Amino acid sequence: MNALRHTISIVALGTFQLGRRMKSQHLHGLLLGTGLGLSTIASVTYAQAEAAKVNRKLNVSKFMAEPITDSAVLLSDQDNMRHRMELMIMEIQADFCRALESEEFNGQKFKVDRWLRKEGGGGVTCVLQDGDVFEKAGVNVSVVTGSLPPAAVQQMRSRGKDLAENVKLPFFASGVSAVIHPRNPHVPTIHFNYRYFEVELPDGSKQWWFGGGTDLTPYYLDESDARHFHKTLKSACDEHNTSYYPKFKKWCDDYFHIKHRNESRGIGGIFFDDIDEPNQDGAFKFVTSCARAVIPSYLPLVQKHKNADYGTKEREWQLLRRGRYVEFNLIYDRGTKFGLYTPGARYESILMSLPLHARWEYMHEPKATSKEGDLLMVLRNPKEWV
Amino acid sequence: MNALRHTISIVALGTFQLGRRMKSQHLHGLLLGTGLGLSTIASVTYAQAEAAKVNRKLNVSKFMAEPITDSAVLLSDQDNMRHRMELMIMEIQADFCRALESEEFNGQKFKVDRWLRKEGGGGVTCVLQDGDVFEKAGVNVSVVTGSLPPAAVQQMRSRGKDLAENVKLPFFASGVSAVIHPRNPHVPTIHFNYRYFEVELPDGSKQWWFGGGTDLTPYYLDESDARHFHKTLKSACDEHNTSYYPKFKKWCDDYFHIKHRNESRGIGGIFFDDIDEPNQDGAFKFVTSCARAVIPSYLPLVQKHKNADYGTKEREWQLLRRGRYVEFNLIYDRGTKFGLYTPGARYESILMSLPLHARWEYMHEPKATSKEGDLLMVLRNPKEWV
Repeated sequence: MNALRHTISIVALGTFQLGRRMKSQHLHGLLLGTGLGLSTIASVTYAQAEAAKVNRKLNVSKFMAEPITDSAVLLSDQDNMRHRMELMIMEIQADFCRALESEEFNGQKFKVDRWLRKEGGGGVTCVLQDGDVFEKAGVNVSVVTGSLPPAAVQQMRSRGKDLAENVKLPFFASGVSAVIHPRNPHVPTIHFNYRYFEVELPDGSKQWWFGGGTDLTPYYLDESDARHFHKTLKSACDEHNTSYYPKFKKWCDDYFHIKHRNESRGIGGIFFDDIDEPNQDGAFKFVTSCARAVIPSYLPLVQKHKNADYGTKEREWQLLRRGRYVEFNLIYDRGTKFGLYTPGARYESILMSLPLHARWEYMHEPKATSKEGDLLMVLRNPKEWV
Repeated sequence: MNALRHTISIVALGTFQLGRRMKSQHLHGLLLGTGLGLSTIASVTYAQAEAAKVNRKLNVSKFMAEPITDSAVLLSDQDNMRHRMELMIMEIQADFCRALESEEFNGQKFKVDRWLRKEGGGGVTCVLQDGDVFEKAGVNVSVVTGSLPPAAVQQMRSRGKDLAENVKLPFFASGVSAVIHPRNPHVPTIHFNYRYFEVELPDGSKQWWFGGGTDLTPYYLDESDARHFHKTLKSACDEHNTSYYPKFKKWCDDYFHIKHRNESRGIGGIFFDDIDEPNQDGAFKFVTSCARAVIPSYLPLVQKHKNADYGTKEREWQLLRRGRYVEFNLIYDRGTKFGLYTPGARYESILMSLPLHARWEYMHEPKATSKEGDLLMVLRNPKEWV
């Protein structure tokens, strides 16, 4: 399946790429604040519009694989949020994978699987396994349609969605998600997920919303890392609404909580769901800002710690914490459950979040006055970092 | 907490011990078919009964710890199924732990934790970790009371229990459960669980039932092991009802199914729930027979394979299969869910079932014509072994 990689050439139009090209053609002003959609260029002549189209080549060789939606469709309807989202998440996936690859010591690369789902849609799963720097890194894009499984309807109703039970509800979901488990215990694990959701109601109307978040799971606490990480996410939020960061930081602490142990999975970040404000375009831009904040929030931490010394003690502690990570993902994580309950789900993509190795010791409790104990203290008492 | 061990002397009456003592006093005939309860000895004189009482000493030093219920209570009401069950599961735990300890190369012993639960009841958790033969072995007894959590009521209703929703339902549950993860990949993992359940209904009546099962998870298929294991369980079932084994064998295959992978966790065994036939005493005896079949079903396999050669390839395959074991237990297992949803649950005892190490590789698929492929074939197509 690696064969797909590097073999894809110029095939489709990407709205954000279009934005960049337009800028170079001095059409920038026309596009500002429009969500980069072409239909808003009402004042250009037909000839100008056609000329622009000629240049609307998207170099998808930068993507990890060909997008799921047919290029002609993506090209013909660029205002459609489904298409804007697909191109955005393909871009995020590629940028993030390249950034991680550049940290490897011996040029290890992501394995790329482009897959289609017989029930509708598909995805691109990128995994780098057994690297020198990244023990297991998974970055997945999926663009799927289908009928909501009953368990998902119930879950959505329980958080206030006005969805009828016992009727077929067609849905569309697209998103990018990643979990990166580095080898060195001094480099934290990061997870992020940004997604767009549509449900068609029996009366023909549509509900849509965005969700997402980025959070950090260190094995050893470095307070300046924690501050840098949270500050970067806060800046991305503040651009859009200064009430977002405090609200979504708390939501993150509440969500990534391992209830049976009464401890957090990590030191948090941001988490949100059901975002439909200020409008579709504004919500998309907010999510895009958050997704683009991932690299600056995380890469500096990889660079800072990837050569740090460690021994068996640090490795075993890391593996124990990875056991906790598995517990959270398999017992509580909504995305994992939604995924596994969806008929025809590609479980390899859903479970790529699991670490290469994990460990469970009976009754393990580190000394309170140890570096391991310092981390546990913060996991049991989430802190404000900015 | 190890201090408790070996320090407990003669304190209480055990119904099954009583049975043995009675036999030596030629009272055996009187007790046959009575479930060993003393109240049925209607024809002995008061003096004889008193004489029997004097000898009704139970040597609990053979248990791993003192039973959860007070010895005086256990002694005063020996017909009570709660007490019969508690003594039976304490005996099973001790016999099984001793049998496993005797297989270790360097005298490794179980660590014993006796714990009490502030909501009611408690348990005895025995774990042998990092042994030469057993990488992680957990054998747990619990005897708990409380109010059924709503999730548990829903689960029980979904399998046909006539329980009201939204009312407080006091319950009593006791059971023994064990998961043994050996170090050598040629020695299979075994799991068993035997339990007794009571729920008090709002009208003051009581529902009770037994549940349980024993199942085997090999890493490499040895057909004669599989036949021996299933044959031993079948004999235990056949003593009570010849329709049991085929029914409970199928139930086991259906239950230990990893739905998202469409494969079984192992090669099955028996599994049943809601057993209340032919009557309470008969059901108890059936469960007791099954629990006593564990050692003869499993120990010969340990002895046969514990010195087998293996290398990295076999070890990595074992760790991958252990990852699947974790998936089943955390995503599907009812016992784990019921446990973790119960307020004040002792999660260390519930999660002792998780292996010391597990591994997840993206898209791992062994060759069809390999020993690993042979196992997968059987996991994907459960077989009849006897």
